[in-house]
Amino acid sequence: MSLIFALEMLGTAAFAVSGALAASRKNMDIFGFTVLALMPAVGGGTLRDLILDRTPVFWVANPWYVAVALAAALAVFFRRFRPGGRTRLLVWMDALGLALFAALGTEISLEFGAGPLVAVMLGVTTGVAGGMIRDVICNEIPLVLTGDIYATAAFAAGLVFVGADALGIDRNLGLVAAVAAGFGVRAAGIVYKLSLPSFKEPPDTN
Amino acid sequence: MSLIFALEMLGTAAFAVSGALAASRKNMDIFGFTVLALMPAVGGGTLRDLILDRTPVFWVANPWYVAVALAAALAVFFRRFRPGGRTRLLVWMDALGLALFAALGTEISLEFGAGPLVAVMLGVTTGVAGGMIRDVICNEIPLVLTGDIYATAAFAAGLVFVGADALGIDRNLGLVAAVAAGFGVRAAGIVYKLSLPSFKEPPDTN
Amino acid sequence: MSLIFALEMLGTAAFAVSGALAASRKNMDIFGFTVLALMPAVGGGTLRDLILDRTPVFWVANPWYVAVALAAALAVFFRRFRPGGRTRLLVWMDALGLALFAALGTEISLEFGAGPLVAVMLGVTTGVAGGMIRDVICNEIPLVLTGDIYATAAFAAGLVFVGADALGIDRNLGLVAAVAAGFGVRAAGIVYKLSLPSFKEPPDTN
Repeated sequence: MSLIFALEMLGTAAFAVSGALAASRKNMDIFGFTVLALMPAVGGGTLRDLILDRTPVFWVANPWYVAVALAAALAVFFRRFRPGGRTRLLVWMDALGLALFAALGTEISLEFGAGPLVAVMLGVTTGVAGGMIRDVICNEIPLVLTGDIYATAAFAAGLVFVGADALGIDRNLGLVAAVAAGFGVRAAGIVYKLSLPSFKEPPDTN
Repeated sequence: MSLIFALEMLGTAAFAVSGALAASRKNMDIFGFTVLALMPAVGGGTLRDLILDRTPVFWVANPWYVAVALAAALAVFFRRFRPGGRTRLLVWMDALGLALFAALGTEISLEFGAGPLVAVMLGVTTGVAGGMIRDVICNEIPLVLTGDIYATAAFAAGLVFVGADALGIDRNLGLVAAVAAGFGVRAAGIVYKLSLPSFKEPPDTN
Repeated sequence: MSLIFALEMLGTAAFAVSGALAASRKNMDIFGFTVLALMPAVGGGTLRDLILDRTPVFWVANPWYVAVALAAALAVFFRRFRPGGRTRLLVWMDALGLALFAALGTEISLEFGAGPLVAVMLGVTTGVAGGMIRDVICNEIPLVLTGDIYATAAFAAGLVFVGADALGIDRNLGLVAAVAAGFGVRAAGIVYKLSLPSFKEPPDTN
């Protein structure tokens, strides 16, 4: 439990930094930094909790998620943290957060009565919806919709957890397998620069 | 009940195709297709259920809504379904979905304690909010806000249902009348290419 | 209570007019006016109520919020109300609404079990989230994120209420102090045209 929470905080910080960096590209003020950091850090899980009627929402119950996201936003704003040479570390923390949030989101959804299809969907939502909201606020089409192997990794994590659950495999083992699968898919995407094919007009196949 | 559900699935498919076509215009990947299909298909009803604290959210309780929307998204992505010659069929299925979702949304809202004003508003929300989210994600001002006789049709459906309910008319009869009204208004808009006047600057009247 | 409600209606009208004016700039139709008026008027409080699982949502329980917002939208659309010479009155009504909504939002959040950090955050959300949604629908980066002394005023109101609450000060006195603080900060921003520093690239300090 305590290990999972520590990893969650790492992922939360990485997600929040992605928002703060988006705010810096748009020359926002300090409030813009905090809003854009909070969106990816807690947005997806909030949507999941609202849809599942899981109360209180996770960061109302435990304000550490918000505190860590705000700290990350302020660190970027006041240039205490400049990604510069640490970009690679950030990418890997982000990959870990993505896999972990998707796996935990899937688990929570099953626990709250969702069927397997909906649980995987809410697991993916947990991992990627907040980043989508960040991009929409920045007036950009969400990056995750246009080719990156990113949502795919969240999907893999969700699918593995649902599969492990269906096979009666122990919850903790299922989580480890799901996080490994999600992280592995994302890592392959990063290392080999893979991307999903995007739809091309005019239709040229079939 | 079973007839209503069958019609709901038709409407869901038409709404999902509208999202998948938006995704194709933005050259999204397969994940983008599923996200943009789900928004119009289940977004408005989700917002209504969250606001009414109606749990579980309709598609968590019954995953067929999600399954049909995903199937429609995949059919467009893999070019199993090319609207081409079937555009007119799609438009009419969409009109049916709009009227039906607005009428059902109004009914559900009354049932969950909303007054008539709020019930009509949540009926319109059920019909059009998901399409608005689709457009916002595509980085476009929602079409429904700029002149189409579309929200008007949802409004007509909601108004007729609330009126029938106030007159003590049987629920099923009220639903039929509301769907007919919404569909009729939308049909008139399509056939006669009607649009609402939009606001013009600088002020030229009064 | 009745005084607070009257002030809330003033603030709701001012917030709704801000949405209707945004709709007029985008040449929307009458439906666009109502949607964009409702967003700032009730959007932030709706998000707060959903996150706190506070049911029914405030405007479902009391439709006057929606009715006043719709009336403001229609007044602008039909040019019964032209801000013209009354811009300054509007700005001050808006400032009052902002301070009041942030203070009340903070109070409600504490009452529903949020800790002080989250309560201030939800107070700010109550004051500014609806306006952000208005801007996002208009396909613009939310104004509040880019330098205005606006969210800062909401933050001041929330902070003062939480502080007064922690000191055991009477609720009504705390509310008055919080509204005064929020209004004062916003007034200083308006009168002296203050703005928050925004982030500049490339990094030039540290």
